[in-house]
Amino acid sequence: MGRVPAHKKHKFDEGEPLAPWREKIHEIIFEADTGWGKAFDVVLIISIFASVIAVMLDSVDTISAQYGKILWAAEWSFTILFTVEYILRLICVRRPMLYARSFYGIVDLLSVIPTYLALFLTDAKYFLVIRILRVLRVFRIFKLASYLGEASMMMKALKNSQAKISVFLYTVILLVVIFGSLIYVIEGAENGFTSIPKSIYWAIVTLTTVGYGDISPQSPLGQFIASCIMIMGYGLIAVPTGIYSAEITRQAISDHKTKEVTNNACPVCAYEGHDADAEYCKKCGAEL
Amino acid sequence: MGRVPAHKKHKFDEGEPLAPWREKIHEIIFEADTGWGKAFDVVLIISIFASVIAVMLDSVDTISAQYGKILWAAEWSFTILFTVEYILRLICVRRPMLYARSFYGIVDLLSVIPTYLALFLTDAKYFLVIRILRVLRVFRIFKLASYLGEASMMMKALKNSQAKISVFLYTVILLVVIFGSLIYVIEGAENGFTSIPKSIYWAIVTLTTVGYGDISPQSPLGQFIASCIMIMGYGLIAVPTGIYSAEITRQAISDHKTKEVTNNACPVCAYEGHDADAEYCKKCGAEL
Amino acid sequence: MGRVPAHKKHKFDEGEPLAPWREKIHEIIFEADTGWGKAFDVVLIISIFASVIAVMLDSVDTISAQYGKILWAAEWSFTILFTVEYILRLICVRRPMLYARSFYGIVDLLSVIPTYLALFLTDAKYFLVIRILRVLRVFRIFKLASYLGEASMMMKALKNSQAKISVFLYTVILLVVIFGSLIYVIEGAENGFTSIPKSIYWAIVTLTTVGYGDISPQSPLGQFIASCIMIMGYGLIAVPTGIYSAEITRQAISDHKTKEVTNNACPVCAYEGHDADAEYCKKCGAEL
Amino acid sequence: MGRVPAHKKHKFDEGEPLAPWREKIHEIIFEADTGWGKAFDVVLIISIFASVIAVMLDSVDTISAQYGKILWAAEWSFTILFTVEYILRLICVRRPMLYARSFYGIVDLLSVIPTYLALFLTDAKYFLVIRILRVLRVFRIFKLASYLGEASMMMKALKNSQAKISVFLYTVILLVVIFGSLIYVIEGAENGFTSIPKSIYWAIVTLTTVGYGDISPQSPLGQFIASCIMIMGYGLIAVPTGIYSAEITRQAISDHKTKEVTNNACPVCAYEGHDADAEYCKKCGAEL
Repeated sequence: MGRVPAHKKHKFDEGEPLAPWREKIHEIIFEADTGWGKAFDVVLIISIFASVIAVMLDSVDTISAQYGKILWAAEWSFTILFTVEYILRLICVRRPMLYARSFYGIVDLLSVIPTYLALFLTDAKYFLVIRILRVLRVFRIFKLASYLGEASMMMKALKNSQAKISVFLYTVILLVVIFGSLIYVIEGAENGFTSIPKSIYWAIVTLTTVGYGDISPQSPLGQFIASCIMIMGYGLIAVPTGIYSAEITRQAISDHKTKEVTNNACPVCAYEGHDADAEYCKKCGAEL
Repeated sequence: MGRVPAHKKHKFDEGEPLAPWREKIHEIIFEADTGWGKAFDVVLIISIFASVIAVMLDSVDTISAQYGKILWAAEWSFTILFTVEYILRLICVRRPMLYARSFYGIVDLLSVIPTYLALFLTDAKYFLVIRILRVLRVFRIFKLASYLGEASMMMKALKNSQAKISVFLYTVILLVVIFGSLIYVIEGAENGFTSIPKSIYWAIVTLTTVGYGDISPQSPLGQFIASCIMIMGYGLIAVPTGIYSAEITRQAISDHKTKEVTNNACPVCAYEGHDADAEYCKKCGAEL
Repeated sequence: MGRVPAHKKHKFDEGEPLAPWREKIHEIIFEADTGWGKAFDVVLIISIFASVIAVMLDSVDTISAQYGKILWAAEWSFTILFTVEYILRLICVRRPMLYARSFYGIVDLLSVIPTYLALFLTDAKYFLVIRILRVLRVFRIFKLASYLGEASMMMKALKNSQAKISVFLYTVILLVVIFGSLIYVIEGAENGFTSIPKSIYWAIVTLTTVGYGDISPQSPLGQFIASCIMIMGYGLIAVPTGIYSAEITRQAISDHKTKEVTNNACPVCAYEGHDADAEYCKKCGAEL
Repeated sequence: MGRVPAHKKHKFDEGEPLAPWREKIHEIIFEADTGWGKAFDVVLIISIFASVIAVMLDSVDTISAQYGKILWAAEWSFTILFTVEYILRLICVRRPMLYARSFYGIVDLLSVIPTYLALFLTDAKYFLVIRILRVLRVFRIFKLASYLGEASMMMKALKNSQAKISVFLYTVILLVVIFGSLIYVIEGAENGFTSIPKSIYWAIVTLTTVGYGDISPQSPLGQFIASCIMIMGYGLIAVPTGIYSAEITRQAISDHKTKEVTNNACPVCAYEGHDADAEYCKKCGAEL
């Protein structure tokens, strides 16, 4: 299948316009603003979710025992649907190879392959791997999430505060390493802290305020150290929140500010972005 | 009972003014600013809380065994009180049907029906359902919460950041699905991760930093994955907080700004939005 | 002892100036800016903490068994110290009764009484009550916390957002009541949800992301409901944080703004608070 | 070894320039902007992490049993590497004593000593202490973290809100002491609350929303108190977050503002702080 796009590539590389029917398909599959495009997206999202849920239910013994046949049928119909979609996508783009190599192209391919693999790899030991690969279909939704301007805006805020966040993460790692090693020495193997990595796992469980309780300090000193980590973790959460809040707030406020500026261009020099209450152009001094 | 408002409807649909005694009742029940109205609200809130607490206590075996009779009496007195109130509400509004069909009308009805149902549906299997319906009375308090301007302001902030929040929720779902499936493969049934849904449940418990510990990873790799989810969840909480903080801050600041500006227009050029302490119009120089 | 201030009251009620030696004591005890006053505060804080720690250690069986005598001695020396201090406070204020009736006056009294009570109430059943009363000494530190301007500023922010916070608290209560009752019906007594109050307790444990795991849902539906509560609680935490952040930010920014204004008064009309870059007084038009 | 810098000190104290080859070493070790400097830093970071991971793995019985030899070799090679580095640092600075006494100097020394100590202190009881000392190498990364401007900016924000944070911490301590003592009296030893310190530990576990569940209240009243602590802790987290968010936001905004202003002074009146897009001086009207 990998070679199909390869030879298609030859056909289209000159980038000459697509045949009308291809244009049509392209419009339906890739564009969200036309009626058919919307319908297609909705159907796609639903079937993706449905297929993922099918995989999940299939993993519940009682359900797979009872409805195994139905789930199997559903799985195959979804797979065929996605396969057709994948091929259509390859057909209706100018550079199939580019799409096939892109992140979403690979995700699309991975969302159909496992089911076909299951035909050949009947060995039980591949079974789980195939199942997990099928769950990864959920990534396909990303494609639609990427439509949302909000998402990109939030990502932008995240990117801007990336450096700060990495400093924060490093601090967290440093803390859990040190406190983990400390508790390992204080509590020791008899209280479940059998090794430094496990103690660090405990420190993470505690610092992030998850607190499973599968391992917990028994000695007074250990409990004191634990208390310190907890209060630290309880306060430390302020750091990422503060960073991100500040970033979003700054964006929100700066948006807000721009709203206070008029869009009227100067009649003389056509300069835009005057203060809302300006009366003379600050570029050429002409009256607005 | 449903028909009562129906025929009342005929009587009032022309919307002619209510009889004075109906006006009076309306004032007491629906208005909060008069002395009687306030008193009525207070009594209502107390009796709602009391009745809900009665239902709760009734569910405690030891208490219901000892004070069953008293709770039964209380339940009926509350029910009758609420029934009377409900009827009065229907009587003193111009369009009883509108009220009966409204959210609060239905809540009010639901808060009295179950007790009457209990007379006919003596079968034990309806018992719990009736009890839960009775707890729903707590919704009636909403009516009074809706008085608070604060609530609406907070809801507004929530609405404004709705799109962002849904992106956040989607991200959370995506993460728990992927990590849940992953841990299901890594840990497997022998460590309690018997199915993908259950593993996703665990992932939610971990990502939200709840950490029951009823299921927890045993293998080193599983614990490593868990650590990743924890730190992710620990940092991810910054996102909704950041969004909401930014929204509230923007509102607070914009409120703050407007407070500093007077609404007095300039008597000469009628320009508005002068600084609170300005004495001369900044447009035409006329004295304010 | 309660009567002592009562007759003192007669002596001082006219409010005539204190005798110099009383003035001196007053200065040392009540004022923090003089050398002696500072020293006194430091000694006081240390002895308060020490006495509280003594009470704590005394509650540890192994320690009280070994060092019981020492702790007993410490307890008495602290009590005598605090008693002397209390009497001095009564002596050196003009209106002892006012002080005795004030919050701190009562706290001071409560911090010494229990030890004396222990002499008469030797019965074991009063023992714990007395111990807990002795712990309440920790409240005395408040007096010194109140010196910090920071604290008052934070309290102010809290007060400003009080209405919002109460709305939030009410929402939390509503959610836990409804979800608690729901889970009680779904899971039932066989999974540990023996009564609605207990189920609500579980809902609080889950919504606040504490997650003891002493009770946890077993049925798939129950775990689904639990997941909803968790995600709700995980997102809901944004609300108080957002409210408080916004409040503090607004204060911080408004402080910040005032910094951008010059302190130069107008030479003519002496009006202050001009914009940093203003050249003409906006009150009288005089050049600055 | 401590004496080496001591006598070097004599040689360099006059602060005369270093010999060229020393200059070169200094450049490589202490400066990050040259090619060699960068390479050195990278190698250093990797070897620090590697050595710390080696210590961790060594603490896992199964691993140390199988790969003990390799880990021992790795440990020694890292130690020798760090020793060489330490000596080089001493050689190529003008005032070795200053460096040796500095925080990082001590950390560097501590990161090599334990392995040598292990040769003499073969007694098992020193074993753990030595291991923990070896983990402390992780502190060496700090040196590189200190390069990041972000870190310092975040620390600044933390410093600015230090007073507020300490007030917050004090409040937390006060709450856990009071609620801890309360629960100790209510639940008592039979439910695991064997002493006040342990009860306070539980209160911290609960307030910080960690919730191990190793100790949890059994009596209805105890569970009610616990609920109060949880909701308190759930809301209280808003305080540090609010403080820190406000601080960061203020910094971010003030940065933001300054970015919008040019530093070009007016050529005529030398007035500074014009809008980035201003073309005429707003003071004297001269063209910028």
